[in-house]
Amino acid sequence: MSDIAYVNGAYLPLAEARVSILDRGFLFADGVYEVAAIIEGRLVDNDSHLSRLENSLRELRIANAPAIQTIADIETELVARNEVNEGLVYLQITRGAAGDRDFGFPRGTAPTIVAFAQKKNIIASPAAQTGVKILTVPDLRWARRDIKTIALLAQVLAKQAALDAGCQEAWMVDRHGLVTEGSSSTAFILTKADVIVTRPNSPAILPGCTRKAVQTLAAREKLTIEERCFSVTEAYEAKEAFLTSASNLVLPVVEIDGRPIGSGAPGDKTRLLRTLYLEWAMNPDATG
Amino acid sequence: MSDIAYVNGAYLPLAEARVSILDRGFLFADGVYEVAAIIEGRLVDNDSHLSRLENSLRELRIANAPAIQTIADIETELVARNEVNEGLVYLQITRGAAGDRDFGFPRGTAPTIVAFAQKKNIIASPAAQTGVKILTVPDLRWARRDIKTIALLAQVLAKQAALDAGCQEAWMVDRHGLVTEGSSSTAFILTKADVIVTRPNSPAILPGCTRKAVQTLAAREKLTIEERCFSVTEAYEAKEAFLTSASNLVLPVVEIDGRPIGSGAPGDKTRLLRTLYLEWAMNPDATG
Repeated sequence: MSDIAYVNGAYLPLAEARVSILDRGFLFADGVYEVAAIIEGRLVDNDSHLSRLENSLRELRIANAPAIQTIADIETELVARNEVNEGLVYLQITRGAAGDRDFGFPRGTAPTIVAFAQKKNIIASPAAQTGVKILTVPDLRWARRDIKTIALLAQVLAKQAALDAGCQEAWMVDRHGLVTEGSSSTAFILTKADVIVTRPNSPAILPGCTRKAVQTLAAREKLTIEERCFSVTEAYEAKEAFLTSASNLVLPVVEIDGRPIGSGAPGDKTRLLRTLYLEWAMNPDATG
Repeated sequence: MSDIAYVNGAYLPLAEARVSILDRGFLFADGVYEVAAIIEGRLVDNDSHLSRLENSLRELRIANAPAIQTIADIETELVARNEVNEGLVYLQITRGAAGDRDFGFPRGTAPTIVAFAQKKNIIASPAAQTGVKILTVPDLRWARRDIKTIALLAQVLAKQAALDAGCQEAWMVDRHGLVTEGSSSTAFILTKADVIVTRPNSPAILPGCTRKAVQTLAAREKLTIEERCFSVTEAYEAKEAFLTSASNLVLPVVEIDGRPIGSGAPGDKTRLLRTLYLEWAMNPDATG
C-alpha cells in the first residue's frame, strides 16, 4: 500500500484518509468502485473501467460525481505521487455523507470520492506460474451483480471460504449448478474441443473489463469463444480453466474443488492469453 | 441528529467522527448494525437487539468485538451525553481497517465500533396517526437476510422507489409473489377473519425484535397470530395491515400500491397493538 490517498479533493497520507461515519458507503454500502492495473506506470484499459463506472453511477442514480476525465486525472496523479510503476489504483464513489441516517437518497449531498494506489507485482505474479485453486460455493448475492457496487459482503464470505479450504479464489454457483463468476474475477473454461467458454453478460454477473479485452484478443488469435453458461461438472472436465480480473490479468486455474483441471498445470491456451494480454496492456495502440 | 458520537473508544463530536477509508465497512459492507429506540431516556427492548447483534457477529465471524455489556454501556453513555429523551441509538461493528484491501478476512485487525444517538419523535409520530403508504417492489437482496448487515443497498433502492412513488415504505416481494418484509421494517396483515399474519423467520427475512415483541403482546391479548407467507394479492384484500420496526414501533399501513387497505384508515387492531407496545416499552417489567 502506498502512502498518498485521495479524499474529496485532497491528497493526503493514507493514515489520515478518513470519511464520516455518516457516509452512505459506510452505513448502507451505497456506492460503486473500480480497480485498474498499473503497468509501466500507466493505467491499463482504463477507458473501459471508467465507462463501467459511469454505468454503475447511472444505475444507482448517484448524481454530481466529477467528470470522468477529472476522475482519470485523479488516478494518474495518484500513480505519480506514489511512484507506482506496477500495481493498481482503487477508486470508490459513494452517495456521500448526509447529516442524518435515512435509507432514501439525501438531497443536495455531494458524493464522496476516495482513491488510493497500491504497489503490486502484476507481471511477475507467482500465481501466474503455479496457477490457482478454486472452491465452488453457492452464489448468495443480490440480483443486480451487473453493477459494480461496494456491497461486497457475499464476495468476502465466498473468498474467505476458499481461503479456509486452501484455495485462492471461489467460483460462485447459481441454483441451477451453473458457475456465475469468481468472488473478484471472471470464470472461463477451455473445453476438450478447444472452445473457450464464459458466461454471457446479464444481471447475474459483472461485465468484466479484462474479460472483454481477453475475448477480443482471443478472437484476433482465431480462438473459438462461446458465451454460454457452464456447469461445475463441465468445469471439472475442462481441458483448461482460467480467471480474469483487472489486478490478476489472466490466471491459470489448476484445481477446482480438489479435482485437477487438465494436467493439473497451467494450460497452453491460458498462458498464451496471459501473454497476449500483457503485450496488449503494455502496448495497447499496436494493431492486433 | 445529536452531537456526540462514539468511535473506537472515543466520544467525540459527530462532525469529527470518522473512519479510515480502508475500513472494511466502507470498502466491503463487511459489518453489522443495530438500531434501538429510546423512550423516556431508556433503551427499548435492547437485550433483544444485542442478542441479535451477537448472532450477526457470529454469523460473519467478526471476532474480538467488545462484550455485549460494554456495548450496552456505550449506548447508555451516548443517550446520557446527548440528553436524548426520545429517539434512537445506532450501533455498527465492522471487521475493521486492515493495512490493505483484500477480500479475505484480515488477521489481527480489531473490529471498528461506531455509534451515535438521534433525537426523534417516537411516541407522537405523525405517521402513527395517518398511517403509511406502501409500494411493493421485487426483493433483489442476497440469500442471508437473517443477518443484520450493513450491505443495505437493495433496501436503499427499494425505499427510494417507494418515496418516488409518494409512499413511505417498500414491501419487498419474492419471485413467488409473496411479501418478504419492508425495506426497514417487518410486514404484517390482519385478514378478514381477524388473523394476524406475518412471514415466518428464515434466511428470507430479518428476525425483527419489534416483530417478536408484538407477537408476544398480541398473544397475551388472545389475538390469533399465524406465521406464514402471504401474497401481495392477499395483502390488498386484508382488513388491516401494519409494519413494525425499532424506530417506528407499530405503524398502520393504509394503502398498498395505491389500493386502500380496509377502510383506508389506521385499523383498530393495529392501533391496539401500537398502544400495547408503547405501554410495554415504557414499563417492560409489568406483568402482561
